Amino acid sequence: MADAAAKERKILVAVDESEESSYALSWCIENIITGNSNDTLILLYSIPPRAVYSTLDGTGYLFSSDILATMERYSSEVAQCVMEKAKRACEALNGVKVETIVEHGDARDVICQAAEKLHVDMLVMGSHGYGVIKRAFLGSVSNHCAQNVKCPVLIVKKPKTDGRRK
Amino acid sequence: MADAAAKERKILVAVDESEESSYALSWCIENIITGNSNDTLILLYSIPPRAVYSTLDGTGYLFSSDILATMERYSSEVAQCVMEKAKRACEALNGVKVETIVEHGDARDVICQAAEKLHVDMLVMGSHGYGVIKRAFLGSVSNHCAQNVKCPVLIVKKPKTDGRRK
Repeated sequence: MADAAAKERKILVAVDESEESSYALSWCIENIITGNSNDTLILLYSIPPRAVYSTLDGTGYLFSSDILATMERYSSEVAQCVMEKAKRACEALNGVKVETIVEHGDARDVICQAAEKLHVDMLVMGSHGYGVIKRAFLGSVSNHCAQNVKCPVLIVKKPKTDGRRK
Repeated sequence: MADAAAKERKILVAVDESEESSYALSWCIENIITGNSNDTLILLYSIPPRAVYSTLDGTGYLFSSDILATMERYSSEVAQCVMEKAKRACEALNGVKVETIVEHGDARDVICQAAEKLHVDMLVMGSHGYGVIKRAFLGSVSNHCAQNVKCPVLIVKKPKTDGRRK
């Protein structure tokens, strides 16, 4: 019998501010993390690079350093807020080590590099990390990671109805 | 604490004759199926439609009914062989119900339809179901399913080295 409960596993969960991501984490906690687990759950959040913010302007003018500083602060606060929420979701997991990592960069690169560097046993993520239009050009983050990460990748979609499956 | 061991889950594993698929099943057994599980493991094999065989000919002539019958028999035997191997891999799983389904059709359609119809909690599959050239035209089966199946999809890649991860 495979003794999943006694096996040490490192599970990387990519979190962001989306409901999809929050659902993916909850689903993982309920379905993958086992009772007497020796699992380590690593929550990873990536702060988008500055190039993404510049699209907010749209005028072609550079932002002042004040505005850039405000943006940096804002994105750090978002990261902190997402992580706090994610950690609260993990609170009931007795015996499971929870680690958090915040990195700057494109989510696709950050996730793939972290999975590789940390030698995780599994990557868990929601199915969408970008809006519809951006996804059409860039492809979804989950597609990219599923194709480029070497470890098993679990892609969790949030059901369209608000109830859980079954 | 999420009590994964007591939860009833239906896990659909797409199996085929590839090593990737065999590895995905083993990985799932070792990492996802828990000790005192109430899980139901459904092994699904899809027999490719006849249009795929006709490419074997390549002359433009139709196959005789004898040849077609031989091919049908051959593909049924392959299905049976794959299923036997998959069931043997599941033998050590005490308390886990194992069901098998063999369907005719394109793997992508068969898997997506089965996941939907059986209301499974998770779909597990290897990352490649076609050869390199065919994948370039059709996209991989796992990509298609990850995008179209509503339940969580776990894509397991076989490591390039022969050893397991870690």
